[in-house]
Amino acid sequence: MSKAYEKNTITEDGQLLLKKAERDQIETVWDRYEAQLPQCGYCEMGLSCRVCVMGPCRVDPFGEGPQKGVCGADGDIIVARNLCRMIAAGAAAHSDHGRDLVEVLAEVAEGRAPGYEIKDMEKLKRVAAEYNIETEGKDPLKIAGELAHAMQEDFGTRKKELTLVKTAPEKRQELWKKIGVMPRGIDREISETMHRTHMGVDNGWQSLLLHGIRNALSDGWGGSMIATEVSDILFGTPAPKLTAANVGVLKEDQVNIVVHGHNPVVSEMIMLACQSPEMLKLAEEKGAKGINLAGVCCTGNELLMRHGVPMAGNHLVSELVLTTGAVEMMIVDYQCIMPSMGDVAACYHTRMISTSDKARFPGMTHREFHPDNARELAKELVTAAIENFENRGEVYIPVEPVNAIGGFSVETIVAALGGTPQPLIDAIAAGKIRGAVGVVGCNNPKIKHDYGHVTLTKRLIENDILVVDTGCAAIANAKAGFKVADAIEFAGPGLKEICGSLGIPPVLHMGSCVDNARILVLASALAKAMKTDISDLPLAAAAPEWYSEKAVSIGVYTVASGVYTVLGPMPPITGSMNVVRLLTDGLNDVVGAAFGVEPDPEKAAVLIRRHIEEKRENLGLPFMKL
Amino acid sequence: MSKAYEKNTITEDGQLLLKKAERDQIETVWDRYEAQLPQCGYCEMGLSCRVCVMGPCRVDPFGEGPQKGVCGADGDIIVARNLCRMIAAGAAAHSDHGRDLVEVLAEVAEGRAPGYEIKDMEKLKRVAAEYNIETEGKDPLKIAGELAHAMQEDFGTRKKELTLVKTAPEKRQELWKKIGVMPRGIDREISETMHRTHMGVDNGWQSLLLHGIRNALSDGWGGSMIATEVSDILFGTPAPKLTAANVGVLKEDQVNIVVHGHNPVVSEMIMLACQSPEMLKLAEEKGAKGINLAGVCCTGNELLMRHGVPMAGNHLVSELVLTTGAVEMMIVDYQCIMPSMGDVAACYHTRMISTSDKARFPGMTHREFHPDNARELAKELVTAAIENFENRGEVYIPVEPVNAIGGFSVETIVAALGGTPQPLIDAIAAGKIRGAVGVVGCNNPKIKHDYGHVTLTKRLIENDILVVDTGCAAIANAKAGFKVADAIEFAGPGLKEICGSLGIPPVLHMGSCVDNARILVLASALAKAMKTDISDLPLAAAAPEWYSEKAVSIGVYTVASGVYTVLGPMPPITGSMNVVRLLTDGLNDVVGAAFGVEPDPEKAAVLIRRHIEEKRENLGLPFMKL
Repeated sequence: MSKAYEKNTITEDGQLLLKKAERDQIETVWDRYEAQLPQCGYCEMGLSCRVCVMGPCRVDPFGEGPQKGVCGADGDIIVARNLCRMIAAGAAAHSDHGRDLVEVLAEVAEGRAPGYEIKDMEKLKRVAAEYNIETEGKDPLKIAGELAHAMQEDFGTRKKELTLVKTAPEKRQELWKKIGVMPRGIDREISETMHRTHMGVDNGWQSLLLHGIRNALSDGWGGSMIATEVSDILFGTPAPKLTAANVGVLKEDQVNIVVHGHNPVVSEMIMLACQSPEMLKLAEEKGAKGINLAGVCCTGNELLMRHGVPMAGNHLVSELVLTTGAVEMMIVDYQCIMPSMGDVAACYHTRMISTSDKARFPGMTHREFHPDNARELAKELVTAAIENFENRGEVYIPVEPVNAIGGFSVETIVAALGGTPQPLIDAIAAGKIRGAVGVVGCNNPKIKHDYGHVTLTKRLIENDILVVDTGCAAIANAKAGFKVADAIEFAGPGLKEICGSLGIPPVLHMGSCVDNARILVLASALAKAMKTDISDLPLAAAAPEWYSEKAVSIGVYTVASGVYTVLGPMPPITGSMNVVRLLTDGLNDVVGAAFGVEPDPEKAAVLIRRHIEEKRENLGLPFMKL
Repeated sequence: MSKAYEKNTITEDGQLLLKKAERDQIETVWDRYEAQLPQCGYCEMGLSCRVCVMGPCRVDPFGEGPQKGVCGADGDIIVARNLCRMIAAGAAAHSDHGRDLVEVLAEVAEGRAPGYEIKDMEKLKRVAAEYNIETEGKDPLKIAGELAHAMQEDFGTRKKELTLVKTAPEKRQELWKKIGVMPRGIDREISETMHRTHMGVDNGWQSLLLHGIRNALSDGWGGSMIATEVSDILFGTPAPKLTAANVGVLKEDQVNIVVHGHNPVVSEMIMLACQSPEMLKLAEEKGAKGINLAGVCCTGNELLMRHGVPMAGNHLVSELVLTTGAVEMMIVDYQCIMPSMGDVAACYHTRMISTSDKARFPGMTHREFHPDNARELAKELVTAAIENFENRGEVYIPVEPVNAIGGFSVETIVAALGGTPQPLIDAIAAGKIRGAVGVVGCNNPKIKHDYGHVTLTKRLIENDILVVDTGCAAIANAKAGFKVADAIEFAGPGLKEICGSLGIPPVLHMGSCVDNARILVLASALAKAMKTDISDLPLAAAAPEWYSEKAVSIGVYTVASGVYTVLGPMPPITGSMNVVRLLTDGLNDVVGAAFGVEPDPEKAAVLIRRHIEEKRENLGLPFMKL
C-alpha cells in the first residue's frame, strides 16, 4: 500500500479503492485538492470581498496593503459578511429540503402523491398539536393538509416566531428574545442575510453576526426540524435496525443501486421499487441474485435509520464507490454530490441519474421526480438499472462490510430509557456517563478521511462520554465498528455498564445532517427534565471534518442553542481577530456557549472533556480537573 | 484644477469637493479604489469559489493550472454559481425593502403607525383589485390590511405565481411558463438560489442561470414592484415637481439635513418633521433661516419624486457632500451607504444617524425607527440637527444648483398623453420618437463619475430616443440639466417636437432603483396597447456605471422581460465563455433579449440605436441602417 493512500484516509476500503482509482486513471477529490494548493490566503482568511463590482477587494492581513475595500468596509465587516452568506446558504439548503417534504405532505393530503402515505400517525398528531391544529377525531389526511399549510407559514413572512422554537427550554427562548435573535420566517431570515450583506447595508460586524445567529436558528429550530418531523411522518420515525457499512455492502452477484444525496423523497420510492416482486423477478431473469440498494451520504442515512438499508460510504468515498465497477446505477437528489461524479461513472458501466428539479450534474441523465410520478419513475429507473447488470466489466469489492445499528431517534432513545430521560440524567449525575457529545458533519480532504471522526469518538467513549452522531460522521463511526452492542468494549467502565444494561452501542446513530435537529430535541428534553438551560448541561458538539456551508449553519445554531462546538477545519474568519474572538470566546457571554477550533482530534477530545467536567462542576456533580 | 479630479468625475461640484477633500485629508472612494489596484483577476473573472471549505478554489483562465475546484466544479459552474448569488443578494435587497413597506402598510391598517396614512386611495383600490380584494364600499384601512396580508403571501412559499406577474403582457407570461422561470414566492426564489449554489446541488450552468432569471423576476415583478406600489399608496403617486440637483442645493444660512439610503419610510417622517412650525421656530431661534432637507441616493429620489425635495448628489458624491461642512445631520436607512461615511463625518461637525434595525455603520449613532415611534423620533433627530447648527466650521458650497423636474410616474406619463399610451405609440410609429431607453443604475469608480450616464443620455436624446431614468443615473442627468423643459434643445427634432408640445423634458425621472418596476409597467402598457410582447418593441435599457448586486438583479429581470440591456462595467463572468455567450447572445433565443457590455457610452449609444432600428424594422416601421 502506497503511503499516499494512507495519508488520505484511515479506511481500508478507501485506501484500496484509491489504488484502484489510480490504476483506472480516475481523478479524485484528493487529486483536485492537491492541484489547488496553495489555496488563496485572502479567501481562506475571509478577507476578499466580491459583494460588488467596485471590487473585488482584498484587505491585507499584514497591515501593509489596503485595510479597507473600495466602499470602506474593513476586515471585520468583510469577514462577517462572508460568514453570514455561508450561514444563509447552509440554512437555505436544509430549509429548502424541509420545504420539499412539506410539499409532499401537502400532496399526500390531497391524494396526489401515489406511493407516499402517512406512516407515523402518532407523530403527525403530536407535531400538529405543536402547530395548534385540532386532531381529535379528524381524518389524518385533513390533519396532514392543515399541518403542511401551517408549516408553510413558517417559511413565510408574517410570523414573529417560528412555531417549533417553543419546544426549546424556556430560558433559552427568553435569551433569544432578549438578544434579538428569535427567528421569524425561515426564508425571511435568509433573504434578510442577503440584504444585510449587500453593499451599504449592515456594516456592524456584531449586528451582522447576531443576525447570522438568527438565520442559523431558523434552520435548526425551523427548516431542519421541519424536515426531520415531516420525514418521520411520511416515512416512519426511526427505530434501531441492524445494518452494515463500507463499500463491502455492494454485492458481486446482485444488481447494485446506490442512492446519493439528502432527501428521502426519491430514495424511499427507489427502495420500494427495489423490493417489488416484479423487479426482483426481472433481476433474476437477467442473471442477478437480487437487487441490492445501498446509500451514500445522507439520503443513505435516511434509509439506514428507517429501513436498515446498508451504507456504502460517506462524502469523500462517493467517487470511489463507483470505481468498484459494481454499481449499475447511482441515483442522486441534491447536496454534497460532487460534480465530478459523472466523469468517474463514465469510466465504468454505471448509469448516473439526477432527479431533482433544482440539481443537474455533468454526465448524468436527468429524470425528474415529482410526488405524482415518483412511484412509476422509480420502477422505470430500477428496471434500467437491472438491464445494465449485463454491461458490467471487472468488479472489485475489496472488503467485508462492518455491522452497525442505526435508527436512534429521540423517541427510541427515550423509550429505551423507559419513557423518560431520567435514567440518562441519573447516570450523568452519578458520573457513570460524564456527558454527551454530538459528533457530526462532513468529510474534508484537509483532514485525513474519517480520522477526525473516529479518533475523537474513540477518545470520548473511552472516557465515558456518550456519543450521538449524524451525517458523514455517523458513517465513519459505523465503518469503525462503534455502532454494535459489542462496541461497549471501546467504552470506559461507566458508559460500558449503562450501554451494556440497555443493550445499546456507546455511539448512537441519530440520522442525516438535517437530523441534527433531533440532537437539539434531545438536549432540550434533558434541559427541561433538569429544569435548566441547555448551556448548563455537560454536552458538547464537534464537526471534526466539516466542509460545507450547511455545517456552518449547523455549528452556529448549535452554539446559539447553548452547546460548545469544536470544529476541525478553520472557517474563513482568521482575517478578523474581532470575529475570531467573538466566536471562540465572546459568544459565551451572549449565548452561553462558543466555538473551539482544533484540527487534531486528540486535542479536540481534551478540549471537550475539559468543557464537560467544567459543566459538571458548575452543576455540583462529581468532576475531574483535566 | 488638478487633472486627477477631472479624471474622476465630470461634475463641477465633484471636482471642487475632491480638491477640498484632499486639502482636508479625507480619504474617498477613489483613493480606496486606487489602493485596491490591481484587483484580483480570479475574482474579477468569477473564477474563484468560496462555496465550501474544501476550497477556496481557483480555476486558471489560461488553462495551465487547475481547471476544476476540489469538488469538480469547472469554470462554467463556478461563474454561474457566483453570478446567481449576486442576483439573490440584489433581489433580497429590493424585496426586503418592499417587505418593510408592506409591514408599515399593515401597521397603518391596524392604527399603530402614527404619522403614516393612506395617501393614494385610488392606487390602494387598484392594487387591491390586482390581488382580487373586494374594495367596493370597504373601509380603506380594511382594504390596506387585506392587501398587506395578500402581499405577504407573495413573500411566502405557497403560491405558484406571484400576483403582479399577471400585469405583464400575456405572451411574456406564457414564455416564462414555457421555460420554467415563472417566479413563485419572493423569498423562496432567493432561498432556492442559495440552496442551488451550495456545493453538490445545481451543477448545470444553464439550469443555474435559468433559476437566476426566475429569482430576478421575483424581484422585478415581485419585491420591487410591491415596494413601488406600496410607497405610492402610503406616500402618494409621484407627479411632476420642480426641484434642483447637485451639492449647491445645500444652503449656507439654513440647517441642512441630508437623507441617504433607499426606503422612504424614514425619510418621509424626517421631511414632515422638517416642515413642522415647531421645528422651523427652533431653527430660527438658533440663527438659521430655515431647515433645508436634501437627498442623496434613492431615498432622495423618493422624496424628489413626491415632494420636489432637492438632490445633493448620487452614490460617488455621498462622501463629498459631507466635505462641504454644511451638513448638520445625515440620516441613513440602508443600501449603498458606504461604511466610510462615519469616518468622513468625523472630520466635520456632521452628526451621522443610522435608523434601520438591519443596518449599522461605524461612526454613526443608532436611533432605530419603527412605524410606532417614527414620527416622534424624527422630531428628536431634527431637533438635534438644529442644535448642531451652531457647531458649524468652515462651509464650502462651491456651485449653484441645477433645476430639474422629477416625478414621472407611469400614471403621470399616461395622463400627460391624454389617458392612453397611444400618442407615444403614434410618435414612435411615425419615427418622431425612434424608441425609448431606460438609463438606470449606480456610479462606479471604474467609470468616470456621471460620464457614462450623461454621455449616453445625450447621444440617445439627440437621436430622438426618449430616455426614462432612475437611481444614480437620474441624478446624474438632473445635474447635467437634462430634466427641464428647455432641455429639448439637446434633443433631436422629432423628440423635441413631441416633448415640446407636451411641455416635458426629453429625459423623464421615474424614481429610485426599486422604481425600475415602473419602467416594466410602462413597457408592459406599450406592449399591451400594441398587442405584442415587450421584446418586439424599440426599447432598450442601460446601466452605464452600475456597481451593485441590486443592479445585477435589475439587469437580469429587465433582459428576462424582453429588453436589451447594455452594461458599462463587465460583470464577473469572463471566466466562462459559455456564460458570456449565453448572456450576451444565447438569451435572445430564450427570452427574446440579451445583454451587451460596453464601458464607452459613445459606443453603447450606437449599440442601442442599432438595436432600436432593428426592432423598428421588424415591426415594419420606418428605420435606418446604422
